[in-house]
Amino acid sequence: MQVGGVHYRSIWWDAEAGAVRIIDQRWLPHDFRIATLETLEDFATAIRDMWVRGAPLIGATAAFGVARQMARDPSDAALDEAWAVLNVTRPTAINLRWALDRCRAALASLPPERRAEAALQLAQDIADEDVEINRRIGEHGLALIREIAARKPAGEPVRILTHCNAGWIATVDWGTATSPVYQAHAAGMPLHVWVDETRPRNQGALTAWELGAAGVPHSYVVDNAGGHLMQRGLVDMVITGTDRTTATGDVCNKIGTYLKALAARDNGVPFYVALPSPTIDWSVRDGLAEIPIEERPGREVSHVQGRGAEGAIAEVQVTPEGSGVANPAFDVTPARLVTALITERGICPASAEGLARLFPERAATTAEEAAR
Amino acid sequence: MQVGGVHYRSIWWDAEAGAVRIIDQRWLPHDFRIATLETLEDFATAIRDMWVRGAPLIGATAAFGVARQMARDPSDAALDEAWAVLNVTRPTAINLRWALDRCRAALASLPPERRAEAALQLAQDIADEDVEINRRIGEHGLALIREIAARKPAGEPVRILTHCNAGWIATVDWGTATSPVYQAHAAGMPLHVWVDETRPRNQGALTAWELGAAGVPHSYVVDNAGGHLMQRGLVDMVITGTDRTTATGDVCNKIGTYLKALAARDNGVPFYVALPSPTIDWSVRDGLAEIPIEERPGREVSHVQGRGAEGAIAEVQVTPEGSGVANPAFDVTPARLVTALITERGICPASAEGLARLFPERAATTAEEAAR
Repeated sequence: MQVGGVHYRSIWWDAEAGAVRIIDQRWLPHDFRIATLETLEDFATAIRDMWVRGAPLIGATAAFGVARQMARDPSDAALDEAWAVLNVTRPTAINLRWALDRCRAALASLPPERRAEAALQLAQDIADEDVEINRRIGEHGLALIREIAARKPAGEPVRILTHCNAGWIATVDWGTATSPVYQAHAAGMPLHVWVDETRPRNQGALTAWELGAAGVPHSYVVDNAGGHLMQRGLVDMVITGTDRTTATGDVCNKIGTYLKALAARDNGVPFYVALPSPTIDWSVRDGLAEIPIEERPGREVSHVQGRGAEGAIAEVQVTPEGSGVANPAFDVTPARLVTALITERGICPASAEGLARLFPERAATTAEEAAR
Repeated sequence: MQVGGVHYRSIWWDAEAGAVRIIDQRWLPHDFRIATLETLEDFATAIRDMWVRGAPLIGATAAFGVARQMARDPSDAALDEAWAVLNVTRPTAINLRWALDRCRAALASLPPERRAEAALQLAQDIADEDVEINRRIGEHGLALIREIAARKPAGEPVRILTHCNAGWIATVDWGTATSPVYQAHAAGMPLHVWVDETRPRNQGALTAWELGAAGVPHSYVVDNAGGHLMQRGLVDMVITGTDRTTATGDVCNKIGTYLKALAARDNGVPFYVALPSPTIDWSVRDGLAEIPIEERPGREVSHVQGRGAEGAIAEVQVTPEGSGVANPAFDVTPARLVTALITERGICPASAEGLARLFPERAATTAEEAAR
């Protein structure tokens, strides 16, 4: 997407400099900074400390991390080290494991001297595939927005609530939940996006920044507001992303997603989840029982970052001294609360049957594995 | 309650100095400051700008505001002015109107020369009554906590989630939602309180500060976390306060309460609302249709206050430049989601029948008025 008139992806290979560049998201929405990742530890830090975030972008970043490792040392030991170091950076994001497994499988079968070039090509392929997947998610989601618009008086905006940032900077480009929004906006449809703040890390500020840069009308609201907005008939649909989707359609996404799904159900508002198929964990059938929830540092809750009075990035502590903090980072929205899943292959019910119809080759493999 | 070993109320008449003192809550939980309110405009500012907050304390503050006005000018015009100026400061808090109507009715029938003394006595009576009401709410709520504790293995804490600050500083003393907690803690029962942050104004930090001062174990969590905690079986009960309760048991409370009630229902967690009867609006039967929701300044959302790096109170902007903000301050939790109401007269179902049984004299009056 465009930032100040220039097209960016969230991660890219700078061939001239021979370096991997990212948008360093720690400073957004206040400062737009670009960082270079070089060592394996750079990549691990960038994922763990959320210089990059969002399941698809984490996967692509891991693939570039493997590629840079192979350029330095293409041995089996170095490949295993890259897999192991990167795999523990974020426990919830399924794409991380997916990308690492894909890289290791492809590279392990090659002689070491061919691995550097192949790894870089694979990372670029994974990034390109993500862009294409998200473009298609946007096309399918656009059809849903058109349906809602068709039922409203002409010229009235379709009002979409979203949680966290499933935007283009959470992917390589387009975003997942935002891709339908960007495509509807490009098609000239009137929209208004309610942007959940998404404490503790306020990723809603990233979504608001993206939407502002793209000229999409929006309002930033606290996470507490969504139920009220739905009660008052001010939300036509919810679209969120997901960090991991089970084979049965349960959705593990940023903490608080479940609460919005409950409110949507209580108010008859359709609740959609946009996902690239690599975020589907075909090995998990019960999201609540089986997905480990990342407990992140308490400081994310006790302290809030923003622009200070003098314009610089500053942090304030909101909790009293001595109070403990808990910081579960994700929750599971059961499939029963999800109206439908929006994937790159189309829209399906949030169920084992719905997913199997769109991805028969994966569902069959999983059933075989389970039978074994 | 105690602060640093000294007993405080949240508002009091300093007879020696002839002045009304409050705890100026804008600086909590970071600084404990006492302010003096003198003019009618002082009182209006303190309520509107939330130096004091919480429905019961707002009512008591308004009564003291009328008393100070009467000390300066006991005329009918001054009495009407006090009513009018204070009544518009916070549109949601029913106690405000209740206290103002009570003061005007009592004082208008007196000759002006007797009003100053009577008004001060009335304000002190209203404050004393609030303390007694909250003490009784605590007794009734304590019985509920005991019931839950009796079903748990001995020594395991009862885990209570609360939203916003319905603590002693939101009342004159004891609090509403916290009164059962303080009484259970005083009785030696093991407890753990999940404290919702309650964006945008983070009143959860006030609750955490109160609980910390009283030695009650607690964790501060973002508003998004409650659903997840309930899904994982980590919440035994929810107790919140309310700014206004309808004659049918709908509860208008701080924005986000409705989301927690939905999650409680979905997970079989009992959801209790503690309320002094002056917060019941006997004239309203449909909370969603009839209660106007206060839209507060956007700056409360876009900016977050806390303790800065140098220890002083500071503010950071969390939203990107140019993004709009919406800030509805309350939502309505329908009676169907409320397990029971905890009042000073006991516990009742959240229904017209339940409330009528506890408050037959008010319910009858209201039915007569409706029939007229």
